[in-house]
Amino acid sequence: MKNKAALGMLAVFLLFMLPMMPKARAAEGMWPLSNLPVAALQRRFHFTPTARWIRHVQLASVRLAGGCSGSFVSPHGLVLSNHHCAVGCLEGLSRPGENLMAHYFYAATRRQEPRCPSMEIEQLVSMRNVTAAVDGATRGKSGAAYAAAMRAISNRLETTCVAGHARKWRCEVVRLYHGGQDWLYKYRRYQDVRLVFVPSQATSFFGGYPDNFNYPRYDFDISILRVYTHGKPAHTPQYFRLSSRGPRAGELVFTSGNPGSTERGDTVAELRALRYPVFPLLLQLLAHQQGLLEAFSAANAHNAAIAAGTLFFIDNDIKSIDGQLAALHNARQFARKVRAQALLRAKVAANPRWRREYGGAWKAIAMAERRNAAMLLPDTMILDARYFSARLFNIAFDLVLGAHERTLPDAKRMSAFRAANLPLLEQQILSRAPVHPSLDKLELVSTLTMTRDLLGTDAPICAALFAHHSPREVALHAVEGTRLASVAFRRTLWQGGERAVATSTDPMIVLARKVLPFYLRLYRQHEDEVIAPIEANTAKIARLRFAVYGTRFAPDATFTERVSYGVVKGWLRDGKPVPPFTTVAGLYAHARGYNPLKLSPRWLAARHRINPDTPMNLVSSNDIVGGNSGSPVINRAGRLVGLVFDGNPPSLGGAFWYDDANNRAVSVDSAVILAALQHVYHANALVKELRSGK
Amino acid sequence: MKNKAALGMLAVFLLFMLPMMPKARAAEGMWPLSNLPVAALQRRFHFTPTARWIRHVQLASVRLAGGCSGSFVSPHGLVLSNHHCAVGCLEGLSRPGENLMAHYFYAATRRQEPRCPSMEIEQLVSMRNVTAAVDGATRGKSGAAYAAAMRAISNRLETTCVAGHARKWRCEVVRLYHGGQDWLYKYRRYQDVRLVFVPSQATSFFGGYPDNFNYPRYDFDISILRVYTHGKPAHTPQYFRLSSRGPRAGELVFTSGNPGSTERGDTVAELRALRYPVFPLLLQLLAHQQGLLEAFSAANAHNAAIAAGTLFFIDNDIKSIDGQLAALHNARQFARKVRAQALLRAKVAANPRWRREYGGAWKAIAMAERRNAAMLLPDTMILDARYFSARLFNIAFDLVLGAHERTLPDAKRMSAFRAANLPLLEQQILSRAPVHPSLDKLELVSTLTMTRDLLGTDAPICAALFAHHSPREVALHAVEGTRLASVAFRRTLWQGGERAVATSTDPMIVLARKVLPFYLRLYRQHEDEVIAPIEANTAKIARLRFAVYGTRFAPDATFTERVSYGVVKGWLRDGKPVPPFTTVAGLYAHARGYNPLKLSPRWLAARHRINPDTPMNLVSSNDIVGGNSGSPVINRAGRLVGLVFDGNPPSLGGAFWYDDANNRAVSVDSAVILAALQHVYHANALVKELRSGK
Repeated sequence: MKNKAALGMLAVFLLFMLPMMPKARAAEGMWPLSNLPVAALQRRFHFTPTARWIRHVQLASVRLAGGCSGSFVSPHGLVLSNHHCAVGCLEGLSRPGENLMAHYFYAATRRQEPRCPSMEIEQLVSMRNVTAAVDGATRGKSGAAYAAAMRAISNRLETTCVAGHARKWRCEVVRLYHGGQDWLYKYRRYQDVRLVFVPSQATSFFGGYPDNFNYPRYDFDISILRVYTHGKPAHTPQYFRLSSRGPRAGELVFTSGNPGSTERGDTVAELRALRYPVFPLLLQLLAHQQGLLEAFSAANAHNAAIAAGTLFFIDNDIKSIDGQLAALHNARQFARKVRAQALLRAKVAANPRWRREYGGAWKAIAMAERRNAAMLLPDTMILDARYFSARLFNIAFDLVLGAHERTLPDAKRMSAFRAANLPLLEQQILSRAPVHPSLDKLELVSTLTMTRDLLGTDAPICAALFAHHSPREVALHAVEGTRLASVAFRRTLWQGGERAVATSTDPMIVLARKVLPFYLRLYRQHEDEVIAPIEANTAKIARLRFAVYGTRFAPDATFTERVSYGVVKGWLRDGKPVPPFTTVAGLYAHARGYNPLKLSPRWLAARHRINPDTPMNLVSSNDIVGGNSGSPVINRAGRLVGLVFDGNPPSLGGAFWYDDANNRAVSVDSAVILAALQHVYHANALVKELRSGK
Repeated sequence: MKNKAALGMLAVFLLFMLPMMPKARAAEGMWPLSNLPVAALQRRFHFTPTARWIRHVQLASVRLAGGCSGSFVSPHGLVLSNHHCAVGCLEGLSRPGENLMAHYFYAATRRQEPRCPSMEIEQLVSMRNVTAAVDGATRGKSGAAYAAAMRAISNRLETTCVAGHARKWRCEVVRLYHGGQDWLYKYRRYQDVRLVFVPSQATSFFGGYPDNFNYPRYDFDISILRVYTHGKPAHTPQYFRLSSRGPRAGELVFTSGNPGSTERGDTVAELRALRYPVFPLLLQLLAHQQGLLEAFSAANAHNAAIAAGTLFFIDNDIKSIDGQLAALHNARQFARKVRAQALLRAKVAANPRWRREYGGAWKAIAMAERRNAAMLLPDTMILDARYFSARLFNIAFDLVLGAHERTLPDAKRMSAFRAANLPLLEQQILSRAPVHPSLDKLELVSTLTMTRDLLGTDAPICAALFAHHSPREVALHAVEGTRLASVAFRRTLWQGGERAVATSTDPMIVLARKVLPFYLRLYRQHEDEVIAPIEANTAKIARLRFAVYGTRFAPDATFTERVSYGVVKGWLRDGKPVPPFTTVAGLYAHARGYNPLKLSPRWLAARHRINPDTPMNLVSSNDIVGGNSGSPVINRAGRLVGLVFDGNPPSLGGAFWYDDANNRAVSVDSAVILAALQHVYHANALVKELRSGK
């Protein structure tokens, strides 16, 4: 048994025995199109992507503004994505008493394709490096001044790029390498998105929550949408044609999509803050919400239907954060992080110029994280409460906050309220998706009660909101008295701006007005004391990394277009190999008589029509995270061979590191997409369009 | 900016600069009556407890088997405890459609005192040191052999002590200093407990969840019960008389009660396991349950009433574990723990005999914690599921497990099923407290679904339970078909033993039977691979601590009688002093028109009758934790001056360490108890009995 002191000495010794540069793992990296790992691809796979190949991938890939990826799969605007990426559309299209997720849907002709009430699909048309402009505008600034300068330059670049056509173009300053590089991405926006095909959720999410983030899987998690311009299918000459046979084991494949966010460039202090207090609090709030909605759903089928969409995402988030928290408590992996940071800091310490320039960055970030922890409860309940709260309140708050923000010059507004983003916001506020006051009551009572419980009866916001009534009474009064279920009423308030909102006596608007000053103060405080110092100092560290390691590493994910390469292969779980493919036969074998293992009538009936050997799902070593849902899996020839819809359990640590031996992306095989559309759903016109482009 | 290597050297250096023995803090310690800190009391307060004083405290204090403390307050069996300690009784006594927690209750005559359906109160009558006997029986053993030997010797000692009168006596082997000392405690058991007085919950829990574990407080958290023998009030000549004036600021006061458990002697590995994965998982499950019951309660007043008791404890647990988790993430305090352990291990490393004897203990505990973490999900869902699940299932499982265990010799049974504990168990199984199938459905569906979700569809227990039906269907079938709501039916099964249980077709019994083999296997595995090695090695470390530090430290809490001393005083919160007392005037000022700040009609009406300067609640530096609820606060003269009902926020870290500057016990002042019983409730006979003993 060694004592502590001896172990301390050993640690010091080991520190200098380690290789001086962390190595990128095999298939690690979500690469921007501007920096594909060409050398590695050539060396390992004798494949060199041509400019034409890259351009094709760029234009055939799309982003779903709700947080997913997708791709064009015909020249007539046909988009392939996941069923779970179309949930908002399906909920919005469900009439009262109807639940579009309970059944499959297929529009055999274009006239039968209904428009999703609130959906935007975006195609990346150009990218421009604007690092010099951003550096020039922000250099030497910190704190509030840095944040203001960053907002101003972003706004100037984006406004110029959009050139007054905010409904057609979206322009975004994209920070790669945490500010080491800045780019201006320009997107073609499609807001007329229509539904062509979805299976039932029982089929898309077969195996349900217990199988989620697991493998083997048997999910047909697809949705097929179509984008329209001027009432006609958009012309999309760059698209991926589906392979009828899918990929082979060991084959090189690429994913193209929009991974949401990763923390691979984060400092140790930031990862520690996630371990505690951020993730445990978030898990607690999500689990509370999960219990609330489960009990609500248990009351009757109508309740179950209207809560299903939210519950799906809560379940998913819980499982995802559970996995991330587990990864952060992997002592070996975390120690690698600590060592890598120590190595970088040792380099800084040894170089006087670097010490001056970068030496304070880690401490500044650690201090910002301490501020963040101190403000976590009010931030969560006031800034983030919308995540947990009722739709009618969210609409009211968007109206009130939107009225306030629109009085400011564009550059000073919060991102969601800048001119470029107003069309999307307006679409959400004026969405015809039905409101559910019974659910809103439950959620608003819960959010307000929890605000009071966590912040305390005497917190200023509680004194303001609950002066004479309980959180429950305040919530019920607002939901029962509001007229915001009416889209026309919302439109009046939206168009009426600050004056209309200030004079409204609608109780939900009144409630949102009371929250506003607290929200604004906290937002600014969070921006100045947490976001700005973290961004500024992370950018410093990123510049340092550039100086040391160059761009041999892929930047952290930013919900922008990235390509990852990988190989179709399984992994070892508890020492036993997990094969890369499942088959249609496996689907039938895994089925039981009850949910979530119940086959839909269509699949039951098709049992003898569809070839049981058809590959169903597959895993590959592509480096993906949330946001990649709906990403096409393509081969060297640019054919679509699969559709990403999940990751295996170890992939949840992908937020912080990539582990080639274990991280796997889970996809629907293109073979089963074509086979099932034909033999299970008899979607002949659709199959023809997918096969022939006509 | 120092680099990592330099920091490492600094840490090594500092390690040897620290004092070589951790100091006990001022009022730290929950002291067994066999080891009161006499020297410290004499030195600091010029007070020496006499043998008579100690004997009086022992016999006037009681333990509530449900997990609380209390004391005799008249010679006729009158017991003072907290309202929240009597919740089980109030729920059990509430007729359908009635909620005894919504109103105050006062039995003006003895004939009006109703019997609590399921409650046991215990008085500690003797204590005997049995360390030598336990050591002799367990020395040299480890793993399963150690556990079996420990069970056998405990059983032999307890059985001899009870001497065939299991309804009258409870005997327990109590391990102090984690096995450094073993004692045999003998209790007089009172199972005929009747209700004399409770305020409404609005009064006892004024301020509700947001004020819970906070201060200033204004709670009248009292219950008054009476124990009977042979249908008459028990004769209890040793009791505490209530002081009509309460304590003064700065006064020395004692608490006498049964702190549940603390982890102050735990190794660093055990505390780390609580940080992750134990507490985050527990918080998640509790928050889920909280959401479930909140939504259930929101449906109607009946639901709210039947879920209130469980919800109260869930809320309380969440807040308590949140506080403990926060304490474990206090870097400064945790570092003290790490240093103290390193010091002890350094002593071991320097002594060849100690190295042989104790050197492996920390590693063995760390390994057991790794096993514990690996089994945490099945353990939580199968061994502990009863905590989260439906009452009807719990009854069924007690019947099934009880039938199985009773076929074993007493020494081989699980603790709850040993002869000495059967009366309490029988009382619970055969309790007439109403069952609520609607709540049971919700809870059982949730527990079974979560079992499936967390363990996976293909886990053996899921294959066994959900072969042909979903968790939901299985749960509904069992709740809807069971006859266990009938106490007579339960009695037949209980008396019929293994044969009756094995042949029963009651669907809840069938379900419990299916769970049983998994439960038994996991229980044994947990016992052998986690509990036994931790206990054996913790005992080793405790013996080492004895060798090094003697009994200058109090042992960790074990839900047995302990006295702590302290002083009535406030603390500094964010640099501002919190005064030690609140008053009745403060109660009226804190009130609002809505729950949980609404005054009861009685208190509203009494506003001008009760002196506003009457002290209401107070804080003192006594070292307490959960289990101390209901503890009397007594002065040097043995008068009752207060009633413990809570701790302040820093006291939640009391599980791991005591901090004299901040840890505070929160009590009801005895002055307000007498004043309110008289002026608010007009409980004249009761006041007379409390004042005069008649």
